[in-house]
Amino acid sequence: MLKNWLKEENIDAAFINSTENVFYLTNFHTDPHERLMGLFVFPEAEPFVVVPGMEARQVKDAGWDNEVIGYSDHENPWDFIAEAIQARKITGKKVAFENEVVTYGRSQAFLNIFDSPHVVNVEDKLNEMRLVKDEGEIAIMRRAAEMADYGVEVGVSALQEGITEMEVLAKIEYELKKKGIREMSFSTMVLFGEKAGDPHGNPGDRKLKAGDLVLFDLGVVLEGYTSDITRTVAYKSVSDKQKEIYNTVLKAELASLEASKPGNRIGDLDQVARDIITDAGYGDYFPHRIGHGLGINVHEFPSMSHLNDGILKVGMTYTIEPGIYVPEIGGVRIEDDVLITKDGHTTLTNYPKELQIIE
Amino acid sequence: MLKNWLKEENIDAAFINSTENVFYLTNFHTDPHERLMGLFVFPEAEPFVVVPGMEARQVKDAGWDNEVIGYSDHENPWDFIAEAIQARKITGKKVAFENEVVTYGRSQAFLNIFDSPHVVNVEDKLNEMRLVKDEGEIAIMRRAAEMADYGVEVGVSALQEGITEMEVLAKIEYELKKKGIREMSFSTMVLFGEKAGDPHGNPGDRKLKAGDLVLFDLGVVLEGYTSDITRTVAYKSVSDKQKEIYNTVLKAELASLEASKPGNRIGDLDQVARDIITDAGYGDYFPHRIGHGLGINVHEFPSMSHLNDGILKVGMTYTIEPGIYVPEIGGVRIEDDVLITKDGHTTLTNYPKELQIIE
Repeated sequence: MLKNWLKEENIDAAFINSTENVFYLTNFHTDPHERLMGLFVFPEAEPFVVVPGMEARQVKDAGWDNEVIGYSDHENPWDFIAEAIQARKITGKKVAFENEVVTYGRSQAFLNIFDSPHVVNVEDKLNEMRLVKDEGEIAIMRRAAEMADYGVEVGVSALQEGITEMEVLAKIEYELKKKGIREMSFSTMVLFGEKAGDPHGNPGDRKLKAGDLVLFDLGVVLEGYTSDITRTVAYKSVSDKQKEIYNTVLKAELASLEASKPGNRIGDLDQVARDIITDAGYGDYFPHRIGHGLGINVHEFPSMSHLNDGILKVGMTYTIEPGIYVPEIGGVRIEDDVLITKDGHTTLTNYPKELQIIE
Repeated sequence: MLKNWLKEENIDAAFINSTENVFYLTNFHTDPHERLMGLFVFPEAEPFVVVPGMEARQVKDAGWDNEVIGYSDHENPWDFIAEAIQARKITGKKVAFENEVVTYGRSQAFLNIFDSPHVVNVEDKLNEMRLVKDEGEIAIMRRAAEMADYGVEVGVSALQEGITEMEVLAKIEYELKKKGIREMSFSTMVLFGEKAGDPHGNPGDRKLKAGDLVLFDLGVVLEGYTSDITRTVAYKSVSDKQKEIYNTVLKAELASLEASKPGNRIGDLDQVARDIITDAGYGDYFPHRIGHGLGINVHEFPSMSHLNDGILKVGMTYTIEPGIYVPEIGGVRIEDDVLITKDGHTTLTNYPKELQIIE
């Protein structure tokens, strides 16, 4: 519990500002745009939530039993926050907030309530709390990953000569929305041929033709949790070079999954995949880390970089997504959502990975 | 030009961090997720852009002729930034960044490069620069607004007994994606009956039935610019109460448009609509400001609140969107995107506004 940590660390007040952390701690999820939304937590006193007035009821509906302070567009929420903190007789010698979320302006507004307090970053603690998922979270993430599998299935079925990347993308999102998905976890990628050779290419009017590699990268947000899958298929034919790239990426992905076990060093998952790709002569064409933590955020802790000395624990969830991108020729990426289990791991995404040549 | 303003204000270095302002100043648009992306501008020295390495080429492709610094996931971009600033022999006594964008952590990393500099907020200046749109921007916004009109058209055509809110929403986004739209400017709203009575309700499984008011609120992102439209229609029948609410909102919207002229006070646009709604007895059911500025952000300056003493100028773009939300009964909102012209205003959105009863 955050409250206990505040006690241990002698922190007098914490301001939680990110949509994701407020959701994690209160079950209330909203996108407040530029308006202020925040949770204020203390070692002893009653916590409170500040939201735009028209959302105050939704905080209660989400199950929040403590104080909710609503404000309207012409009011300054910091006036109410200062009042509520003073009413609780909090004297902040040491305060905490999310250093990489709270804006400089808001940090100053919060700090001004107190007398030059010492600042602690609460983000590491929250990232740590969120690192291991409980059964309820995993159940939701499984369903989010199934929807991602389904998205790839829809995309593969939509492939036909001359169809554009955007048409395939539209079809995928349409079918997912019909199943109740309100939000993709990031901008869906559907890339054909040389377009897939750019790790940050954008879908457009490129028409599908025989011999193209087709890369799908997509995910959904379901009940506040995300999924993220990448699959690459060949359309009508595949060259030896494309096959070599595909099989190198697949081998790297499987090796990294194989290393996904409780007790293993996180950084090794990147290293094992990187070694395979480098040995095959494609080291320069794998310009990103092996993956990222996955949960409420589509990118969260742990960072799956070769530098991460952290240790895998049961209940951690993350992506494994090696890729090789050769300009002009095309690219291959294969990505799964992984859950660390007692016995090793399981993938939450399960769309087939053998090289498919779509007719 | 930002550079000239820095000179005038004796600011030694500015760090621009928001996707939107970097796009505005460089024409490069990206979503860097949690990675650092920034533009650094100086009164005399060459500006530079810092991006994740794999996007470095895209900055050049967008037309940026100055230095681009790419970094990989295992490098700390602040090391490169400090070097580049030192190479330019910048001694920062006064520095600027976006107070409400730059996180506390990044503000500290930037400030640490200098010797306890004075901090200036560059946001007001950038908001002011972006307030008046040029011909190129307006041309794009017109097309974005036409797409929003089309979205409502698709939604209205999709209405039939028993269809759910999510099914209508999926249909709208599918048709827009087929036309090349990659991103909606916010989560599309399709709300039926009592669901529309909550100004922040969420689309779900609610099935359409005769006598429902149907509220659509949607917009697209097109070439970096946004649109935002709301229309409300009645399905099969309409009660006297619903008609009264609709016509009150429409009257308020038209009055606010009528007041949209160069030289008028911005706050009066909210006041004139609010007076009409209050006189009709619905003052308590109009809980938000009349609208918001519109451009690269779907919510930007000016704030269309009754407190805004700013003056309307030719080239400003914003929404006008009065609404009345009566719990259990339903809600009506009518929203247009407005451009101030020499002669008064024009609406960029043009879907019809007379009360439609859909059969």
